Amino acid sequence: MTTVIVLFHDRFVDRKECLIDIEDRANQFGDGVYEVIRVYDGEFFLFDDHLKRLEYSLNEAKIKYDINHQQLKELLLELLKKNEVNNGGIYIQISRGIAARSHPFPKESKPTVIAYPIPTSRPLDKQENGIQATLYQDIRWHRCDIKSLNLLGNVMAKQHALDIGASEAIFYRDYNHVTEGSSTNVFIVNDGVIQTHPANNFILNGITRLYIKYLAKQLDLPFNEKVFTVAELKEADEVFISSTTSEVIPVTQIDETVIGNGKPGPIAKQLLNAFFEHHKIQQLTK
Amino acid sequence: MTTVIVLFHDRFVDRKECLIDIEDRANQFGDGVYEVIRVYDGEFFLFDDHLKRLEYSLNEAKIKYDINHQQLKELLLELLKKNEVNNGGIYIQISRGIAARSHPFPKESKPTVIAYPIPTSRPLDKQENGIQATLYQDIRWHRCDIKSLNLLGNVMAKQHALDIGASEAIFYRDYNHVTEGSSTNVFIVNDGVIQTHPANNFILNGITRLYIKYLAKQLDLPFNEKVFTVAELKEADEVFISSTTSEVIPVTQIDETVIGNGKPGPIAKQLLNAFFEHHKIQQLTK
Repeated sequence: MTTVIVLFHDRFVDRKECLIDIEDRANQFGDGVYEVIRVYDGEFFLFDDHLKRLEYSLNEAKIKYDINHQQLKELLLELLKKNEVNNGGIYIQISRGIAARSHPFPKESKPTVIAYPIPTSRPLDKQENGIQATLYQDIRWHRCDIKSLNLLGNVMAKQHALDIGASEAIFYRDYNHVTEGSSTNVFIVNDGVIQTHPANNFILNGITRLYIKYLAKQLDLPFNEKVFTVAELKEADEVFISSTTSEVIPVTQIDETVIGNGKPGPIAKQLLNAFFEHHKIQQLTK
Repeated sequence: MTTVIVLFHDRFVDRKECLIDIEDRANQFGDGVYEVIRVYDGEFFLFDDHLKRLEYSLNEAKIKYDINHQQLKELLLELLKKNEVNNGGIYIQISRGIAARSHPFPKESKPTVIAYPIPTSRPLDKQENGIQATLYQDIRWHRCDIKSLNLLGNVMAKQHALDIGASEAIFYRDYNHVTEGSSTNVFIVNDGVIQTHPANNFILNGITRLYIKYLAKQLDLPFNEKVFTVAELKEADEVFISSTTSEVIPVTQIDETVIGNGKPGPIAKQLLNAFFEHHKIQQLTK
């Protein structure tokens, strides 16, 4: 078994030697942000968009850390090489750093940067056959736009889904307001129109969500960013979810309700078929 | 400078040698719970109540870890000795353990237990002169009763308070619903009646909050657990906050509003005076 190499700040270290201080703010407050970037055929997918969102999260969480894009990209490419990752994913986390435990931001602290490969493969079976999801009340905080390490609400929801034999929990704040999945964005389709929650403080603006918006434009599919209700979700022609690791996965059942004819719908299939035609695109956001 | 000894699982290790795996769930998901227990004159204050709440948090977060009370108490007393703590505090954290990064609970993982002393002294100046607080909208999740490591919302609120020259942020969900402070419980007093938020999912049920309830009974002070509004907060005869490290601190100003006559009120003083008369009590909760 080969060892995993971790990028720790700007150094490459053995996985076993990369350890966190007990007073790292990530460990005690979840006080950090992260990204998972997909790698296809040895290349990062939508790297610049992930980095842009990482900067957004840092900024909103008021973690002072200037990303040197070029340097970080070179280090992460080196990380891929060292770990011989051709297809997979890179997890990168930046915490506010180490300081004696106290709620306020430390006066002086150096943000902790960690990146390492996480095994990822395309969920082909789920993409082809669809999944079952369950509704779960969204009681998370109102800054889900920050990709932070405060993920207990998402973790509890995901585990609940698995416990009852579903694959994903779909959050609703109330019956008039479906938000997103526990680790995915959620889309409905009616009469060929794709609809998803607007990118605001109640959801994470997924990079794959943005990519689907881009694909929809390429495919001349109307794309509507507007809140939908639980009833609209259940009565949609199609439902699908997206994420960096899921890409696009059709949802064929939500609790007792069969979606459409209970089979993956044509729009989800069309998006999946187009997924790799356009994946050489470098950047979606300006 | 003497080194700090940390309790790591059931072993005592040097602070520098106690390090966290990058895939500890605390580091990546804030997936853990904690307590801060006060030590006065070499003895834990309300130890059993803290342990009971720790068990509650573990249970609500569905972290499977059976606390052996007697063994843990012995280990923590040993920790005090080894670190020569006579007055101070102990931080104890239990995470869901280490596992390859993925939202669902790991099938097999050994919870990570860490405890170490954090310097704590009585905030005598604040207790005598009172503090200024600021109102801050409570957008946190709806399970604030779990003392979890998902603290970014609390951290942001506390830092905001300090940034504008206040000492604490008082959360309100809406103008009819004041909840608690960023790291404290909040009380108002009118005509000698103490009022505080009921112990439900919107606040942490502070051990010092419970102790104040106990003290109020000893002092024949009426104690009312009922939601109050922002207007009621600002117009109260007295406002004070409590926590393990704050004990009781009067709030004399909230943003531009002076509370009462702008000086610490008689009930807060009475509670502070009584604080140590009763501090040999072993357990408040059954």
